[in-house]
Amino acid sequence: MPRYRLDIEYDGTDFSGWQVQPNGRSVQEEIEKVLAILAKEKVRVVGAGRTDAGVHAKAQTAHFETQTDLDAYRIRHSLNAMLPEDMVILGMRQVPPDFHARFSAKHRQYAYRISLKERALQRAYFWHVSYKVDWDKIRPLLLQIEGEHDFKAFCATGSDAETTRCNVHFFSLEQNGDEIVFTIRADRFLYKMVRSLVGTLVDIGRGRLPEQNLAQALLSGERKLAGDTAPAKGLVLVEVGY
Amino acid sequence: MPRYRLDIEYDGTDFSGWQVQPNGRSVQEEIEKVLAILAKEKVRVVGAGRTDAGVHAKAQTAHFETQTDLDAYRIRHSLNAMLPEDMVILGMRQVPPDFHARFSAKHRQYAYRISLKERALQRAYFWHVSYKVDWDKIRPLLLQIEGEHDFKAFCATGSDAETTRCNVHFFSLEQNGDEIVFTIRADRFLYKMVRSLVGTLVDIGRGRLPEQNLAQALLSGERKLAGDTAPAKGLVLVEVGY
Repeated sequence: MPRYRLDIEYDGTDFSGWQVQPNGRSVQEEIEKVLAILAKEKVRVVGAGRTDAGVHAKAQTAHFETQTDLDAYRIRHSLNAMLPEDMVILGMRQVPPDFHARFSAKHRQYAYRISLKERALQRAYFWHVSYKVDWDKIRPLLLQIEGEHDFKAFCATGSDAETTRCNVHFFSLEQNGDEIVFTIRADRFLYKMVRSLVGTLVDIGRGRLPEQNLAQALLSGERKLAGDTAPAKGLVLVEVGY
Repeated sequence: MPRYRLDIEYDGTDFSGWQVQPNGRSVQEEIEKVLAILAKEKVRVVGAGRTDAGVHAKAQTAHFETQTDLDAYRIRHSLNAMLPEDMVILGMRQVPPDFHARFSAKHRQYAYRISLKERALQRAYFWHVSYKVDWDKIRPLLLQIEGEHDFKAFCATGSDAETTRCNVHFFSLEQNGDEIVFTIRADRFLYKMVRSLVGTLVDIGRGRLPEQNLAQALLSGERKLAGDTAPAKGLVLVEVGY
C-alpha cells in the first residue's frame, strides 16, 4: 500500500492534544476525518510525537497508508482547504513503506518560550513568568542535562514508555529582551519531560528548589525532587529529524 | 484634576475596535468599566488613535482624568488583574494637565505583517498572501508615499477627518523568509489608511493594478484608483510618539 508523510503545523490552544481521545478535539482525529473523505476509506494517521493539550507544533510529522494512489500535491491542497484554520499541512509526499513517523525518527526538537512581561499579543505562545529568576544560574545546569540519562524524575505518571532513558543532544537558553527561549533536542522525550525540565529549572532559578535537586533527580529518578511542570502553551514541537 | 497616561497592549482579534460602540466589545469600554470601579467615578478614556476591529496594539496611548489622586503603580496592577487577558496596561503615570493622548501625539507608527505561507501558529497576526507578488516592484513605491500628501484616496468613507493631508515620515518593507513587514510612521493617519496603502501596494505588486495608479491616487484623491483594503489582523499600532 502507498505510504505518505505529512508535515503539520498546528496551534495547540484549542486541541486536547495530538492523539485521538474520547472527549475533546485532537489533531490526529481532524486529519483522519478529512483523509477518510479524500481517500474514500478509513485512514489511520501515526504521529512522530504525542503533543499534549495546549502544546503547539511548527513541524509535527506523521504517516499514513491508503489502498489508493493519491496525488500528494492535490491532496495537500484539499486537506488545507478542508481542515480548520488552526492546522496547516506544510508538506505531503509519498515515502518508502519502511518509513515510520515515530520509529524512524532520530530526534525531536522542542522550543519553550517564557515571557518576562505580561502580554496580550501572542500570549498563547508564552508562559508569563512574573517572579524574579536568575537565568545565569540556570545556564550551567543545561550542560548537566545534556547527554544520556534516566529522565524518570521528569516524566509525568501515566506514561507508557518502556524505558525512561533519553539522550539529550543539546539544551540551550537564549534571552532576547523580555523573551527567554529554551531549545532542546533529544532522541526521544518522555511524557511532559520538557515542561517538567523547564519547570524545575525555573524553580531552581527563582530559589524555590536547591540547585542540587537537578543532579539528584537525574541520579535517583525521584519525581519529588523535580519542580513544577511548566504550562503547555509555551511549548512548540519545532522539528522531527530522520 | 489629576490626569494619567496609560500605555496599552491589546490583541485586537476579539475586539470591535478601540472606540466604545453600541454593539460589540471595545478596548476603551473595557478600561472605562474597570477604572470606574477603581476610581469610584465614571471615567472617560481618550486614546491616541482609534484602531478598527481586529487591529492590534503593541503600545496604544490613552489619558484620563479623575477627581481623586490615584497611586499609579497600584492602580496599574489592579487594572491588569481585573482586565481580560487580551489586554495589558504596560504603563501608567501621572501627566501634566495639558497632556492629550490624541492631540499631543507627534507621530504614530504601525507595522503590517504578511505571511507568504499559510500558517496555523500566530495566524491572528498575519495576512496570508498566497498569490505571487513582486516585492521589488513595491519597494521604490514606498518612497513616493513618504512625505506630505493628500491621502484622501486611501481613506475609507465614514471618516470624520477635517483634512486628508498627512505627513508620512517613513515607510519601509522588510522580508525575512516567509514574512513581509511594512513599517510606516506618520504625523496622523486617516481611517483605514495603512490597510488601504498596503492593499494597493500588494495589488500593484501582483499586477492587478497599474503602477501609475499610486501616484495618480495621491494626486487626484480618487478612491477608485486605489486597491483593496488589506485585512485588519495584519496591522499593529506599534508606537505613539510625543
